[in-house]
Amino acid sequence: MTHPAESGAAAESASRGVGRRTSPRQRDIAELAERAQHGEPRAVARLISLVEDASPLLREVAERLTPHTGNAQIVGITGSPGVGKSTVTAALVGALRGQAKRVGVLAVDPSSPFSGGALLGDRVRMQDHATDLGVYIRSMASRGHLGGLSWATPQALRVLDAAGCDVVLIETVGVGQSEVDIAGLADTTLVLLAPGMGDGIQAAKAGILEVGDVYVVNKADRGGADQVVRDLRSVLSLGATTGTWRPPIVKAVAQTGQGVEDVVAAMDKHRDMLQSTGGLTARRERRARDEIEAIALTLLRSRFADLHGHADLDALAADVAAGRQDPYTASDRLVAAL
Amino acid sequence: MTHPAESGAAAESASRGVGRRTSPRQRDIAELAERAQHGEPRAVARLISLVEDASPLLREVAERLTPHTGNAQIVGITGSPGVGKSTVTAALVGALRGQAKRVGVLAVDPSSPFSGGALLGDRVRMQDHATDLGVYIRSMASRGHLGGLSWATPQALRVLDAAGCDVVLIETVGVGQSEVDIAGLADTTLVLLAPGMGDGIQAAKAGILEVGDVYVVNKADRGGADQVVRDLRSVLSLGATTGTWRPPIVKAVAQTGQGVEDVVAAMDKHRDMLQSTGGLTARRERRARDEIEAIALTLLRSRFADLHGHADLDALAADVAAGRQDPYTASDRLVAAL
Repeated sequence: MTHPAESGAAAESASRGVGRRTSPRQRDIAELAERAQHGEPRAVARLISLVEDASPLLREVAERLTPHTGNAQIVGITGSPGVGKSTVTAALVGALRGQAKRVGVLAVDPSSPFSGGALLGDRVRMQDHATDLGVYIRSMASRGHLGGLSWATPQALRVLDAAGCDVVLIETVGVGQSEVDIAGLADTTLVLLAPGMGDGIQAAKAGILEVGDVYVVNKADRGGADQVVRDLRSVLSLGATTGTWRPPIVKAVAQTGQGVEDVVAAMDKHRDMLQSTGGLTARRERRARDEIEAIALTLLRSRFADLHGHADLDALAADVAAGRQDPYTASDRLVAAL
Repeated sequence: MTHPAESGAAAESASRGVGRRTSPRQRDIAELAERAQHGEPRAVARLISLVEDASPLLREVAERLTPHTGNAQIVGITGSPGVGKSTVTAALVGALRGQAKRVGVLAVDPSSPFSGGALLGDRVRMQDHATDLGVYIRSMASRGHLGGLSWATPQALRVLDAAGCDVVLIETVGVGQSEVDIAGLADTTLVLLAPGMGDGIQAAKAGILEVGDVYVVNKADRGGADQVVRDLRSVLSLGATTGTWRPPIVKAVAQTGQGVEDVVAAMDKHRDMLQSTGGLTARRERRARDEIEAIALTLLRSRFADLHGHADLDALAADVAAGRQDPYTASDRLVAAL
């Protein structure tokens, strides 16, 4: 299937761990993990590609990296299309780099312009030193995974965390379930709004207002920003607060940088609160719980596929499709056959 | 917790099967299912509410309804925000009603205006006869379910199918995973595009172009529609066709009704092709397979929560969060303890 010359080149680049389309072997993982821990961007890229490919080697990756995780502050950034998520993300990267922090960006928003390792242009200067991560930006396809975001993102976070990122920003679009997912993954969730988008109603509908730790009213130089703040304050006052944390509302104009330091300050304040109250551990344990469950369910699902005979999934599906059996009875038989 | 007077009224309305907030008992399900099969809208509404609530009685509902399913043509409608999904859906309902077909609409798009049983206004005349379903429109919240769309929607489809709908239109927003889900659920998937939205690139990125059985270029009276058709044709010619089916591209102006009959004709043609090639059975078996798996995984997940002691999920999560154990090893222990 593979052209001999290609195959040779592939084997060579795999042994260096930087091949783009080759599958590394188990023994390469130790080296890749080692290099990622030193913040080498190509090793980080390679490991995140394994996540996207749902590689069986992820088990090995997790074993190697888990002991080196726990440092990164995980910040989720969500909001409806058009509120300026990418601009806010870029502005935050700039501000955090100004504090000499190492920053990772994971864009899991399919409409994000940060695709295929695209950069933030002149807004952020990428570090070219192989040993200084500085900023690592990566878009990620979460399709094809059972559980999507909730399965793939923790694996990518682990890589960036172990690679020494002080902060990882996860950008995702606030539609449907994703804002719920992001809140489950992040230590701190920023919910973005902007004037003139009818966000009040839309956001409430999409459940966005249940998940924010910090609210950012972006494009605050436009008319109606104060109204958004007022509406938001009024809706938030009705909701339950997480313990004693009252989600702040920060006005910003990410395009010019106005208010961005305030957003960073609010993020830090939330993190300090989480640390002092034990909430950080609680959130991380919930995240670990979700991940363990997702991996276990993937494992069980692969066992379903291996079943044969009477409880064969295909045979059960044919019965259900023909109306001869209901899907609950069919799944009882499937589980019983495990 | 419940006010005595409310409780009395609730018990009464539950016995009639139309209570809005009460949980029916198992013996009520037989009656509800019977009434839904006669197309009674309130019984249909009640059963879909059970789906939204992930009621334990859904097992009973599925048992009752499964033998009466298989008639409805399931049509998925997806596309980026702004392409006119709701307008196209409304226009299709009108055209199908003109053919005296019973139509169900499930809006699983959180930004859809079809919310909480809201109607299509003057575009479609709702039938008020309890025994004539005519059009049943329902928005559905899929949050909170493991598997979201893929878990809840088949259950709601089953209700509408058993209730005698000839066609069920499922409207969903084309972001992230949802367009993949919709293709898994529908017999025929309509992918909507519109001029001036940069859809070519966005759609390709979001994988939309892999899932369409019929492409509709809506707002075709606007400049650039022919360009969208040309771009689309060129992209589609690169992709794999499903067997011998070459997805048609239909131009329409849903707002005025122009081209809507052509969309219906393309839907019917696709359905005829599926029936004659056996593809319909294959798609429905795949859907049943996904549903059986989703139910089985939900069942297994509930067992995880019941585990205690050494393989307690919380204890494993604490180990993983603290970096003492990787999540793969933790999930091995979880699965082994089942």
